[in-house]
Amino acid sequence: MADPWQDAMDHAVALARKAGTLVRDAVQNDMKVMLKSTSVDLVTQTDQKVEKLIIESVTKKFPTHCFIGEESVAAGEACVLTDSPTWIIDPVDGTTNFVHGYPFVAVCIGFAVNKQLEFGVVYSCIEDKMYTGRKGKGAFCNGEALQVSDQRDITQSIVASEFGSTRDPEVMDKVFSTMRKVLCLPVHGLRGAGSAAINMCHVAAGSVEAYYETGIHCWDFAASAVIVSEAGGVLMDVEGGPMDLMSRRVVAANCQVIAERIVKEIDAFQPTRDDAAAQD
Amino acid sequence: MADPWQDAMDHAVALARKAGTLVRDAVQNDMKVMLKSTSVDLVTQTDQKVEKLIIESVTKKFPTHCFIGEESVAAGEACVLTDSPTWIIDPVDGTTNFVHGYPFVAVCIGFAVNKQLEFGVVYSCIEDKMYTGRKGKGAFCNGEALQVSDQRDITQSIVASEFGSTRDPEVMDKVFSTMRKVLCLPVHGLRGAGSAAINMCHVAAGSVEAYYETGIHCWDFAASAVIVSEAGGVLMDVEGGPMDLMSRRVVAANCQVIAERIVKEIDAFQPTRDDAAAQD
Repeated sequence: MADPWQDAMDHAVALARKAGTLVRDAVQNDMKVMLKSTSVDLVTQTDQKVEKLIIESVTKKFPTHCFIGEESVAAGEACVLTDSPTWIIDPVDGTTNFVHGYPFVAVCIGFAVNKQLEFGVVYSCIEDKMYTGRKGKGAFCNGEALQVSDQRDITQSIVASEFGSTRDPEVMDKVFSTMRKVLCLPVHGLRGAGSAAINMCHVAAGSVEAYYETGIHCWDFAASAVIVSEAGGVLMDVEGGPMDLMSRRVVAANCQVIAERIVKEIDAFQPTRDDAAAQD
Repeated sequence: MADPWQDAMDHAVALARKAGTLVRDAVQNDMKVMLKSTSVDLVTQTDQKVEKLIIESVTKKFPTHCFIGEESVAAGEACVLTDSPTWIIDPVDGTTNFVHGYPFVAVCIGFAVNKQLEFGVVYSCIEDKMYTGRKGKGAFCNGEALQVSDQRDITQSIVASEFGSTRDPEVMDKVFSTMRKVLCLPVHGLRGAGSAAINMCHVAAGSVEAYYETGIHCWDFAASAVIVSEAGGVLMDVEGGPMDLMSRRVVAANCQVIAERIVKEIDAFQPTRDDAAAQD
């Protein structure tokens, strides 16, 4: 049987590349002629422009499809995943990196049907790396098949995470204590690319064994979740159990044993869910 | 007057490219066919092979020059900076990244005469970025002039640092408390590329405003120190005052005010100096 969503995925790849080119031009050209102090406006403009470009193009081709997009939600739209074919969009993942020209910035397009992720596209546009994953058909970077690391020993691993943007002391206590416990397992090192999607693509590519974070949004990791699982990795919640796309928490790892080992060290907390309004 | 060290710098650039190609091939080809568990041997082999290649080639061209190299020091050679023209070499900066295929791995060649750094070459070989700095003549990346960020407000900055490799609880207390204080200034974010040299090149390129670390060695930051200062940045010790190449400590920043602000937050400690044996 022909893949019913191949057409949508091809469209997502083309759109991610087009959007990524726009983002890269903004970082490499527009940013150079402005002071860093005004660059925050540029990221907002670029974010909105890219999301509009993607939604308009998809609506034209697939008029019945739904959307969850970072900018649309920020503008007041509901963040609800229904059974309808839904495009989950982060126009610029790694906005702080964008503002500073740090080289990890991605356009993310995830796609779910019946609440199941079907494909994910993450275009790391400064590096010019196109990561894709299609359920049951593997994950690729610029056409080359991705495979998670074969490491089974956490003490020989690199783990990725982020400090996050909150400066709430109670949350920071947990973020820091978790990082210290993970470091002292010990692991080879901790890295943070400053983009959830790219951290997860690094898991898929095998350059880090695991990634965990709390506080991210569904559009930050929907696309890359497919890429990780199709590269042979596993996804779970930070307290174990299945990953919940709306929970704002994820552990992605090369294998079950390393994911579970990380879970043991995490001091979990629960930020307001992405679908909190919908659950009221 | 002709630059007396231009010839040496040209040679350093050519050698860094040759060495970097060797390192990149090892990461991208050899690593793929081996288990992660045996890749630590590969980094040691590559480290030694690259340092030998550089030292042999330089000795042939400049027979009177001296060397300080990571592998030579590990093999028992003295780590002393004299007034003689001295090549300070890190064959593979970011060895943990190397082992895991994380994309920040650099060949570093610094050059000092009369204990003053004259030029630095950092080749980030997986990214294929050649960073160079020549005292009084500017810093470049792949031929394009580098300029530090114009940001003067620490709260609008990204800061780079690393957790380091020690798991000594007292040192970790200081590393973590410093990171938390820096984060809570607040800053936009903390990043760590996993390579001191590349973190410093990010300062030079303006994608992070500052970098600080204690525990690195002279070969990790000699080359990139020239690149930072020639891109308009400043270097100092983690307790303020001039940078000391043998102290294993450095702050690199886009400007004096941000460097001094970082210094205020650092819980300083002093690891054994690189030239400790020479000072006995």
